[in-house]
Amino acid sequence: MPELEIRTAVEDDAPLILRLIEELAEYEKLSSEVVATEETLRKSLFGERRFAEALIGEIEGEPAGFALFFHSFSTFLGKPGIYLEDLYVRPQFRGSGFGRALLAYLARLAKERDCGRLEWSVLDWNEPAIKLYRKIGAAPVSGWTGYRLTGDALEGLAAGG
Amino acid sequence: MPELEIRTAVEDDAPLILRLIEELAEYEKLSSEVVATEETLRKSLFGERRFAEALIGEIEGEPAGFALFFHSFSTFLGKPGIYLEDLYVRPQFRGSGFGRALLAYLARLAKERDCGRLEWSVLDWNEPAIKLYRKIGAAPVSGWTGYRLTGDALEGLAAGG
Repeated sequence: MPELEIRTAVEDDAPLILRLIEELAEYEKLSSEVVATEETLRKSLFGERRFAEALIGEIEGEPAGFALFFHSFSTFLGKPGIYLEDLYVRPQFRGSGFGRALLAYLARLAKERDCGRLEWSVLDWNEPAIKLYRKIGAAPVSGWTGYRLTGDALEGLAAGG
Repeated sequence: MPELEIRTAVEDDAPLILRLIEELAEYEKLSSEVVATEETLRKSLFGERRFAEALIGEIEGEPAGFALFFHSFSTFLGKPGIYLEDLYVRPQFRGSGFGRALLAYLARLAKERDCGRLEWSVLDWNEPAIKLYRKIGAAPVSGWTGYRLTGDALEGLAAGG
């Protein structure tokens, strides 16, 4: 298979990005959680304040996958990191190193932007992904648990806290 | 004890922020991981591109604690979130609801900025913090594991991938 061409997403990619997010959610068995729309993506990724950036991976012009990331920040390092929110390669393009190619692109970007880390989360049952992450030398972050406040609990704290 | 006054950190707070980061790291038994300096904080928090924001909580002008956060992004929500990287209240100011006050301030900020989530991570042994997080209605994120690529592994992927 030819080499993956990676480019920065532009606003016209919003419908494609939404489709890829939906495909990823389906793979992750989390489709019911997707409430993003083309409009929210346009605003958040390409609007006045940009909260994340996206890369599109293509094979001969056909979208094969994508990566979506934002800058995290480590107080201990005193430096930003790159947090990879989504990494997805379409089924028919798997097994050709495209996931690794997207990760390598992000690793180069992290160096260019003087970031101390490239980090992400993976579903515990996603063994093919975990295998790849271990292969490139990534280490699981142990001893920490993520917490999240959303919906009514977030409203409640904002109103009453 | 009087009420906590919360203000946005300014560049002159860089030495104070570094001191509070060091105190937090000591509490977390992770002091050896702190390589941040005043200079890296100045650049990352108050430079041309700002990667994170900080809040200072004060009691009668004396710094009682701080919160440091950046914007995350959820593709499923199609919206940014607020990721709380550090939350710290100095020992002599604990037990007066100041941690909760900082979280409530961030919850209001999340609503103002149309964010879908307020999220953070906690060390698994930090029971006083976990108790507070559960009390305000936060839920642990289960089924996901964080991965991180740093140092030589990051360099290696950037160079060879």
